[in-house]
Amino acid sequence: MSETYVGIDLGGTNIKLGCFDSNLNLLGKTSVATEADSGPAAVVDKMFKSVKGLLAEAGSSLNDISAAGVGTPGPAKYKEGIIIASPNLPLFKNVPIKKMLSERLGAPVILDNDANAACWGEYVAGAGKDVNDMVFFTLGTGIGGGIVSDGKLVHGCGENAGELGHIIIYPDGRKCGCGQRGCAEAYASAGSTAKRAAEAIEAGAKSSLKEVLERNGMITCKNVYEHMAKGDTLAREITDGTAKALGLLCINVLHAAEPKTIVFAGGMIGAGDVLLNRIRDYFNEHIWTLKKETVEICFAALGEDAGIIGAAALAAQCKNKDNTRQKQ
Amino acid sequence: MSETYVGIDLGGTNIKLGCFDSNLNLLGKTSVATEADSGPAAVVDKMFKSVKGLLAEAGSSLNDISAAGVGTPGPAKYKEGIIIASPNLPLFKNVPIKKMLSERLGAPVILDNDANAACWGEYVAGAGKDVNDMVFFTLGTGIGGGIVSDGKLVHGCGENAGELGHIIIYPDGRKCGCGQRGCAEAYASAGSTAKRAAEAIEAGAKSSLKEVLERNGMITCKNVYEHMAKGDTLAREITDGTAKALGLLCINVLHAAEPKTIVFAGGMIGAGDVLLNRIRDYFNEHIWTLKKETVEICFAALGEDAGIIGAAALAAQCKNKDNTRQKQ
Repeated sequence: MSETYVGIDLGGTNIKLGCFDSNLNLLGKTSVATEADSGPAAVVDKMFKSVKGLLAEAGSSLNDISAAGVGTPGPAKYKEGIIIASPNLPLFKNVPIKKMLSERLGAPVILDNDANAACWGEYVAGAGKDVNDMVFFTLGTGIGGGIVSDGKLVHGCGENAGELGHIIIYPDGRKCGCGQRGCAEAYASAGSTAKRAAEAIEAGAKSSLKEVLERNGMITCKNVYEHMAKGDTLAREITDGTAKALGLLCINVLHAAEPKTIVFAGGMIGAGDVLLNRIRDYFNEHIWTLKKETVEICFAALGEDAGIIGAAALAAQCKNKDNTRQKQ
Repeated sequence: MSETYVGIDLGGTNIKLGCFDSNLNLLGKTSVATEADSGPAAVVDKMFKSVKGLLAEAGSSLNDISAAGVGTPGPAKYKEGIIIASPNLPLFKNVPIKKMLSERLGAPVILDNDANAACWGEYVAGAGKDVNDMVFFTLGTGIGGGIVSDGKLVHGCGENAGELGHIIIYPDGRKCGCGQRGCAEAYASAGSTAKRAAEAIEAGAKSSLKEVLERNGMITCKNVYEHMAKGDTLAREITDGTAKALGLLCINVLHAAEPKTIVFAGGMIGAGDVLLNRIRDYFNEHIWTLKKETVEICFAALGEDAGIIGAAALAAQCKNKDNTRQKQ
């Protein structure tokens, strides 16, 4: 077997790994605990051994690897392949992960932002596979983003483009962890959605979520959607606030990059159509009338595999030194 | 002489034309009245004759034209080279301008959005000539925009990307001509700046602009800046509102495309440093603290020539079938 590509999603808790053939068909995948406290060398060793194991299971070997891609949260010097720092990988300071892993695997390694890798996965093989222009949001604790313009990821001058969660929706609004006010993330991430619900209850709003807050000392985004489904008014209002911020965010990225498809991923899409339909409602309510927009707003298609597929596809693209998409 | 490129900026009032050598050095330029009422064939004929005249003056001829570029306001099918409709060119309905002009000139013609052409001009030879990632705003009656990502114009799936004036800054805010509410254009264009001043005076605000409004029946954006310079408080507040909307707009495009340089062009930059500095102030006040941003926010360098230079450069790029910038 030849031309095998490896995709790795390096997170603070888990490392997801997959190996793929040249058409990006999955040959095998696995997930292992990162154990970030063991330090960069041990983590790279774990990645190496996991890849080796995966390849063996697929009847392949290290010699078959054409290239490997790694997605990881920033800040990082992606082109240089260096993780500068990461809140979830505290011992990773200026770690030349690309060089370290490349030496072990004996193959070229590329590094990119984890949201970009997942964006690329959806673009290559998921919700965006039939388009050339796509915007991607991942709704988790924060809001990550990615933009594909005419078949290329938009990286920006310092590799920090696509920080779409920090587009300001409400100037002088809610404080965001980034230091700005009114970011989309401060309203519409899973974390902010839950926080807005808790704040409203603490401020005296009536809600069936109050009992959850009192019992658990916190509310999760999932609680909000569950209680909305049961008819709770506050949960509905909080969800509407999330959907409105996301609908406005869609309008803003539409006018900037004019994607054909806008894809939402991340844990929060578990809320299902009730959330998606509200996002579309707000988009339709607030979008211009100058011309009819046909952008498709949808949920991701690949689930948790987007990151490893995207990382492998970026590796394949880099290896082949062209900018064309390798489709499944 | 060989390898001559023609750049044309087709507006409702005037047609600006320039011819350039292969290094985009200006060989000659002119401006003629569009006389749009004479219809597409007459306008194309006028463009043809103007180009012919320009070339003759430069000691050149039609045979030397390698390619020509035309910038025009939308909506248009730019790749196909068809002007669908244009508020300022009322007789231009589904006009195959690219084909018509190409047949007359005997050379390939490309069509692009006028803001994109001016953006590309600044990128190739103006304020963005040393960077690969740039965002461009033109502040006139409305706000046009353009994005260059990694050396390429972002066109979007339907060639309507870069409509940056319609990014929503204040949800549910001022009504914009596009049908949305709260667009940057509804606050910060030259037209909206003047309009906000007039509205404030009509609502009873004290201002030295009141006398202008009563005398002329209207206020211009230039009036606002002049009266601000003379110490008028309302004019200062209106200008601050414009600068704040533009500062927030800069933050939003920074997080989307991460340009190295953000360039403002158009009539309103005549206001000078007093406006530019306030935009920078608001940007600095509202930008995140997560990492230091080094984006340069500046005014355009090419003045009214940006459109013809950019159109010629796009023609040269298209002719040479690569994506590299031809620098001066």
